[in-house]
Amino acid sequence: MNQRDVIDGTELGADGVLALAQRALELRGGAAPLRFPGKRVISVFLNPSLRTRTSLEAAAQNLGMHSVVLHPGSDAWKMEHRAGAVMDADATEHMADGVPALEEYGDVLAVRAFAKLEDREEDRRDPVISAFRRYAKRPIVNLESALWHPLQSFADAATWMAHLGPDLRGRKLALTWAPHPKALPMAVPNQVLLTAALVGMDVTVAHPDGMDLDPTIVDRAATLAAEAGGGVRVVHQQNLDGAEVVVAKSWSGWSGYGRREEEARARAALRSWTVTADKLPPNAGLMHCLPVRRNVEVDDAALDGPRSWTTETAGLRLWTAMACLEAVMGERAWTA
Amino acid sequence: MNQRDVIDGTELGADGVLALAQRALELRGGAAPLRFPGKRVISVFLNPSLRTRTSLEAAAQNLGMHSVVLHPGSDAWKMEHRAGAVMDADATEHMADGVPALEEYGDVLAVRAFAKLEDREEDRRDPVISAFRRYAKRPIVNLESALWHPLQSFADAATWMAHLGPDLRGRKLALTWAPHPKALPMAVPNQVLLTAALVGMDVTVAHPDGMDLDPTIVDRAATLAAEAGGGVRVVHQQNLDGAEVVVAKSWSGWSGYGRREEEARARAALRSWTVTADKLPPNAGLMHCLPVRRNVEVDDAALDGPRSWTTETAGLRLWTAMACLEAVMGERAWTA
Amino acid sequence: MNQRDVIDGTELGADGVLALAQRALELRGGAAPLRFPGKRVISVFLNPSLRTRTSLEAAAQNLGMHSVVLHPGSDAWKMEHRAGAVMDADATEHMADGVPALEEYGDVLAVRAFAKLEDREEDRRDPVISAFRRYAKRPIVNLESALWHPLQSFADAATWMAHLGPDLRGRKLALTWAPHPKALPMAVPNQVLLTAALVGMDVTVAHPDGMDLDPTIVDRAATLAAEAGGGVRVVHQQNLDGAEVVVAKSWSGWSGYGRREEEARARAALRSWTVTADKLPPNAGLMHCLPVRRNVEVDDAALDGPRSWTTETAGLRLWTAMACLEAVMGERAWTA
Repeated sequence: MNQRDVIDGTELGADGVLALAQRALELRGGAAPLRFPGKRVISVFLNPSLRTRTSLEAAAQNLGMHSVVLHPGSDAWKMEHRAGAVMDADATEHMADGVPALEEYGDVLAVRAFAKLEDREEDRRDPVISAFRRYAKRPIVNLESALWHPLQSFADAATWMAHLGPDLRGRKLALTWAPHPKALPMAVPNQVLLTAALVGMDVTVAHPDGMDLDPTIVDRAATLAAEAGGGVRVVHQQNLDGAEVVVAKSWSGWSGYGRREEEARARAALRSWTVTADKLPPNAGLMHCLPVRRNVEVDDAALDGPRSWTTETAGLRLWTAMACLEAVMGERAWTA
Repeated sequence: MNQRDVIDGTELGADGVLALAQRALELRGGAAPLRFPGKRVISVFLNPSLRTRTSLEAAAQNLGMHSVVLHPGSDAWKMEHRAGAVMDADATEHMADGVPALEEYGDVLAVRAFAKLEDREEDRRDPVISAFRRYAKRPIVNLESALWHPLQSFADAATWMAHLGPDLRGRKLALTWAPHPKALPMAVPNQVLLTAALVGMDVTVAHPDGMDLDPTIVDRAATLAAEAGGGVRVVHQQNLDGAEVVVAKSWSGWSGYGRREEEARARAALRSWTVTADKLPPNAGLMHCLPVRRNVEVDDAALDGPRSWTTETAGLRLWTAMACLEAVMGERAWTA
Repeated sequence: MNQRDVIDGTELGADGVLALAQRALELRGGAAPLRFPGKRVISVFLNPSLRTRTSLEAAAQNLGMHSVVLHPGSDAWKMEHRAGAVMDADATEHMADGVPALEEYGDVLAVRAFAKLEDREEDRRDPVISAFRRYAKRPIVNLESALWHPLQSFADAATWMAHLGPDLRGRKLALTWAPHPKALPMAVPNQVLLTAALVGMDVTVAHPDGMDLDPTIVDRAATLAAEAGGGVRVVHQQNLDGAEVVVAKSWSGWSGYGRREEEARARAALRSWTVTADKLPPNAGLMHCLPVRRNVEVDDAALDGPRSWTTETAGLRLWTAMACLEAVMGERAWTA
């Protein structure tokens, strides 16, 4: 385990997250990035990616680094993460061997491993990224794990700062559940909630009954928010009035975790939760991490409207990835 | 939509295509390429590729650029292209969101999306690359769409110029249908026909009854050829006498488009159309875009013979891709 | 065929292998690598890879080169290798066309193609890499073929030199068979045996009855070892006493080659061959090329023990790949 791991972003503290977002906005404005020629980021993707992979590869280039991308199970060996496993099944390589090997070839290891949505206690342990940390000596960067998506939250924070100014305390963010044809992991809503709370925003989480988040994460966020001068509130109707920022996202409920058919029936009955342009407060910015199911999660009118920040946030994924690599590579203060 | 899009190559005009091919021959001869350090080409491949992907990646390197390659449905999200779609099925990301996001990370977007060969009116709309253009502000480069393959045609034109000289008007090109175990898209024969017509060649298209090309494309090519001092003729026997250039390629017929079983029976009865060495006029150059089904489309004796230009054309994919990127990146005149 | 092909490593001779390993240790120690800016390695992977692909890509970067990676059958066309084939089945591209095309785009071609384990005479011909050599003019580097894995052996030799000193003649190496849930190719044991013999080590191959290696390879190694002052001995019990180096690896037996069910029953009865920490002589180094099936091939206690060299060898894959590219690119003496 390395002190520069980026797992949920709180490693940097509120001031560190804000400083990273500020640095990203400066880089976007033309500031020269630090350069790490001859250095490498090695990314291990157990799930697909468009923005995360491309922005990280572009960020590496902008810093003079090279990016190697592996897909275990496809171009690389299927990996085992359980310590002590008798490897008699289909996984070919143990992370105990693969992670130290990759560290011989690169300076930063990054990994994406979504929740399996079968066993909530298993997912709660965030098993893959935890194994990467267990076997690594160099920094590990989370490219979305079962629980967290810190690189997304850095771009979110930079978007908030770009529109709301540097002091985010007390600013009103509504995170609303949205329909989706499939049960989805909770890493993004967990992370939005955690980061908004960390920087002291006034957060409302709106979701239907049964589509609850992990209560321990809600409690953790509430504590962080209270410390920072903000708050966390959970409601079960989709009233977005008063919000300055609306974050739409679908997720599968904690209560019904892993009960696929039951959960699918519940979701099918909740199509009224689609985020439509008419539900948005007049001046609220609309955010979604993307990819978004258009006209299911959010309608075209909202996504293509004048207050949609989705493309801007996607763009900030590049500049925040650069700022994150600057910090991880150790040339900038880790926290503000 | 961007004025520097490269969709079928006619955007450059006849003089522009010839200038690009000439530039490629100069680059092959040792001319120094322009340099675009810190710039990126992002390529989205919905189908496999050997030459297109490798030559583009090598071209980018030679110009100091970086290439990012994505495969939606495999390493990236499956994409929807229909405007207004209710995304309740298997596509995860709409191009309305994915294309603008990728444009935040790169300077040129390139995309490969073959015809599906199910609905000819749908393929005629070239739906994927059309959607990329609809949602893009930066240049889009076609890496082979349902209808066109312009990068191949630039290498074809450079090959013609290398062997026949700079003035291609009236030079005799025969494009012949060839057998294949599978029904194939028409992008390559469409493009050979269009580009040869554009530069004023005297084109004969030879195909069996039923293996016709889209008549609107044949008409368009005939008009272009007439304007440039050439001509287009369609014949139904494989007499290649008099041709200076023979282009072999299999394609599925426009008349029987999408009728797979019927089309397969027709093809099976047409094995006599294999292009063999003895069918080639003594001094004609043999071309094929590759990959080629050896001893089905073209026999070994022809492909390995002294007048086979296939490897040379493949090599020119590198130098024409460089010349194309130079033009698209805006540092050279777009047309001659 | 090119005089700088690296197929089984013996092209360099014993002195060349030792010089390459020595150079790798110097590079690891901080020596500046040669630089080949603007040059390219194109790698064709027909099978998965973690270390080989990543170390080669990192090595290319360290030498100022670019690496292009293709996966025929996935992102590139499925390839045919048989000369004269009538390509009426599922392979889309013949190596006779694909290899020369790739050579137009790169300076070194590298290829991975494992044994199919169906027909031992077919695998013995090493058909894919042989076809690459047949159609290539530039150097071909073997990234593990049906028979050989030379890049692994360079890292093995560098590991031996790091621990045993520069003169390996007479040093005692035991190569032991180990259990595995699947039948595996013999490229790695073949290569360990060949390279250890080439540099004059005293090699013991320990395997159960029926898990024999190709006798022609054992004979070839014995001849090489005798010339170099070493020896080769085959035993059928797993007594590792006296070994200074223990190499563990599973492989499928030559006698039962391709008889999958029979071979699976035999393997299942041989779990006592798991290499455990208590079987290792006190000062012997433990090697495995990785990936390793933990607690099936080798137990955790051995792999995580103080004499495990597996991560060090994996790390030397980078430095030996650099030394190999230096030699192949022609700027260093090919042999010592």
